[in-house]
Amino acid sequence: MSDLRINQERLWASLMEMAKIGATKKGGCNRLAGTDLDKQARDLFVSWCEEAGCDVYIDKIGNIFARRAGDDNHAPAVATGSHLDTQPTGGKFDGVFGVLAGVEVLRTLHENNIQTPTAMEFSVWTNEEGSRFQPAMQGSGVYAGRFDLATELNKTDANGIRLGDELKRIGYLGEEEIGSRPIGAFFEAHIEQGPILEDEHKAIGVVRLGQGIRWYNVEVNGRESHSGTTPMHLRQDAMVPASLIIAELEQIALRHENGLGTTGFMQVYPNSRNTIPGKVSFSAELRNPSSDTLLTMHQELISFCETLARDRNLDIKVDPFWYFAPVEFSASDDVKAATQLLGYSHMDIYSGAGHDACYMADLVPTGMIFIPCENGISHNEIEYSSPEQCAAGANVLLHSMLQASERIVKR
Amino acid sequence: MSDLRINQERLWASLMEMAKIGATKKGGCNRLAGTDLDKQARDLFVSWCEEAGCDVYIDKIGNIFARRAGDDNHAPAVATGSHLDTQPTGGKFDGVFGVLAGVEVLRTLHENNIQTPTAMEFSVWTNEEGSRFQPAMQGSGVYAGRFDLATELNKTDANGIRLGDELKRIGYLGEEEIGSRPIGAFFEAHIEQGPILEDEHKAIGVVRLGQGIRWYNVEVNGRESHSGTTPMHLRQDAMVPASLIIAELEQIALRHENGLGTTGFMQVYPNSRNTIPGKVSFSAELRNPSSDTLLTMHQELISFCETLARDRNLDIKVDPFWYFAPVEFSASDDVKAATQLLGYSHMDIYSGAGHDACYMADLVPTGMIFIPCENGISHNEIEYSSPEQCAAGANVLLHSMLQASERIVKR
Repeated sequence: MSDLRINQERLWASLMEMAKIGATKKGGCNRLAGTDLDKQARDLFVSWCEEAGCDVYIDKIGNIFARRAGDDNHAPAVATGSHLDTQPTGGKFDGVFGVLAGVEVLRTLHENNIQTPTAMEFSVWTNEEGSRFQPAMQGSGVYAGRFDLATELNKTDANGIRLGDELKRIGYLGEEEIGSRPIGAFFEAHIEQGPILEDEHKAIGVVRLGQGIRWYNVEVNGRESHSGTTPMHLRQDAMVPASLIIAELEQIALRHENGLGTTGFMQVYPNSRNTIPGKVSFSAELRNPSSDTLLTMHQELISFCETLARDRNLDIKVDPFWYFAPVEFSASDDVKAATQLLGYSHMDIYSGAGHDACYMADLVPTGMIFIPCENGISHNEIEYSSPEQCAAGANVLLHSMLQASERIVKR
Repeated sequence: MSDLRINQERLWASLMEMAKIGATKKGGCNRLAGTDLDKQARDLFVSWCEEAGCDVYIDKIGNIFARRAGDDNHAPAVATGSHLDTQPTGGKFDGVFGVLAGVEVLRTLHENNIQTPTAMEFSVWTNEEGSRFQPAMQGSGVYAGRFDLATELNKTDANGIRLGDELKRIGYLGEEEIGSRPIGAFFEAHIEQGPILEDEHKAIGVVRLGQGIRWYNVEVNGRESHSGTTPMHLRQDAMVPASLIIAELEQIALRHENGLGTTGFMQVYPNSRNTIPGKVSFSAELRNPSSDTLLTMHQELISFCETLARDRNLDIKVDPFWYFAPVEFSASDDVKAATQLLGYSHMDIYSGAGHDACYMADLVPTGMIFIPCENGISHNEIEYSSPEQCAAGANVLLHSMLQASERIVKR
């Protein structure tokens, strides 16, 4: 069994065929959740799974589960999956690679008539991107019990169209109860969406953690005045303190191992060249794989802002409106063992972005497999991973699933 | 003659009457250049000057000159003036106070039958604010030869309406040649539009200089990437360097006496919370009354940006697209002597904003008189100076003009 390999050409051909659905001129994909294009992609996935002998189940939030029976069909199955929806100017690999790596694992088992110890399930999660309906990772979030089913089905897009109505319309509002699949382990293969594997020349990232995230809205309130007539000592400039906080975010990140700190969004009022800004609003984000370190970073940010507000006699509001706790991927040893069996160069890594696997980790031992993507670029039409890189990821997925299946039955 | 004083109540009544033209609900004025409201304000000014015995001349850019004859009508006249146009949500004092202080000087001379050594001229300059037609200080700028007459008459507002057509329509496109008034000195009274006089408890600011201004467009070009998946050492974040430059602008200003440094405008691309900005554009402004100091400040900014670009391997473009050299007000000794004669508390000050007097200083010895305004607030409907503060400024204007008139004849 350890000699078993997926078919690189077939995997690549499937990726390219799927990429035709919602293809953009610049080589990417625009396949928003719940659209006709999403339906076409789902139908293609379902047809491929049925051709390879699976039974297909749809649950009440539109998640798809294609089941291939095993030796012991009472034991929990080993599952894999990702998503087929994309950003409006998304690429051909984000999510799709994970789904089609699953299909390729399925086909490899099927053509070789391999009877696995447990059943295997191949899934597609509804609306991972969160572009058309918010939040992101909606289908897996509902499945894992993080979000309420009725609430999420009632979510509307920018035109007021309900997710539930769209799923019904495209034929993917199913009957299966939420969270009802008999699953014992979950794996997700995904492009890294960052530059680390490429920079370190590694084929596989064994994802140990999903890092923790803290999001803030920061608002500095000063007093608008004329930039030519207000001396420095009589100003209440909102812009300079905002700048100092942004610079400090970088320093906080650099002081802590694996720390990240970012301001991506800013609005300046009144945003006029010769008026000292009276108000500046901006986003702050801190990330760290360790929840303790992330808490320390959080405290440093709060304390810096408090001191700055006092020193400058300004009102600085810091609203820490979202916290995503770090996720441990407890099945990552299966991924590591499979990678070593296959002889790929690899490194431990943590996931910077959110993935369906982050929610599945609430329920069952979960592992993620990263492959490099060119220049670390994702959420972009030029997103690219090579056929060889994709094949490596799919082979690791195959052997991770086989390993977990054996482990489940032995236990 | 040194006992002569203006009439505080009459000056205040005139200010309040003028403020009815274009009055806004919040107590301010909306009287854009070349509008029907501008015509009404000009007509009122002209009627007041004619009642007080003046001949009125209109030049080819719509500037108004009301002339009161003196003893020696071949000697150059002493002139004063400011503007009647306002910002869209302007106040009752910016510009208007200077014009009506002139009218009050005229009335005081007229009711006391005072024969001045030279003629006196009372002027209104076209479109000082630059709100409807750009640039600001347009009438005085054309008069002083800084701008070309034909070019400025062809300038259009947001609806494509020509300034020249509007002046003609409201009856203020005159025949007088540009720059042809026989003037020997110019004075402008104005609210400070800043907080210094109020903060220092002074009634009068003797304006020694109009400060120099340097304007820049700064653009930091990095590389957009995902804030969760891009480690700090692989980022090309455009936001942090922008913040460091903004913080440095403050430091440059604080290092130099009377230095000012401001960023009022910023745009972030793509301005999304979890994307590291690939491009940040912002304004930078440096001001100083000394051209040498302003040059040093400029060099410090350029050098800081060059070092930062090198250290962070980023492209930072600094475009120094506008320089306004400091203006010396060489008739400010007349203002100081008049202030001392009248016994008002006073201080030397420089003008932070641009004024018509800044261009008139190109042609003749010029002086400016500042009075305090509440909380330093201007370009705002709540702009306010008290009747006493306005009277003090008008009295200083009266005696500055008398002093200059005597000086011109003696010479």
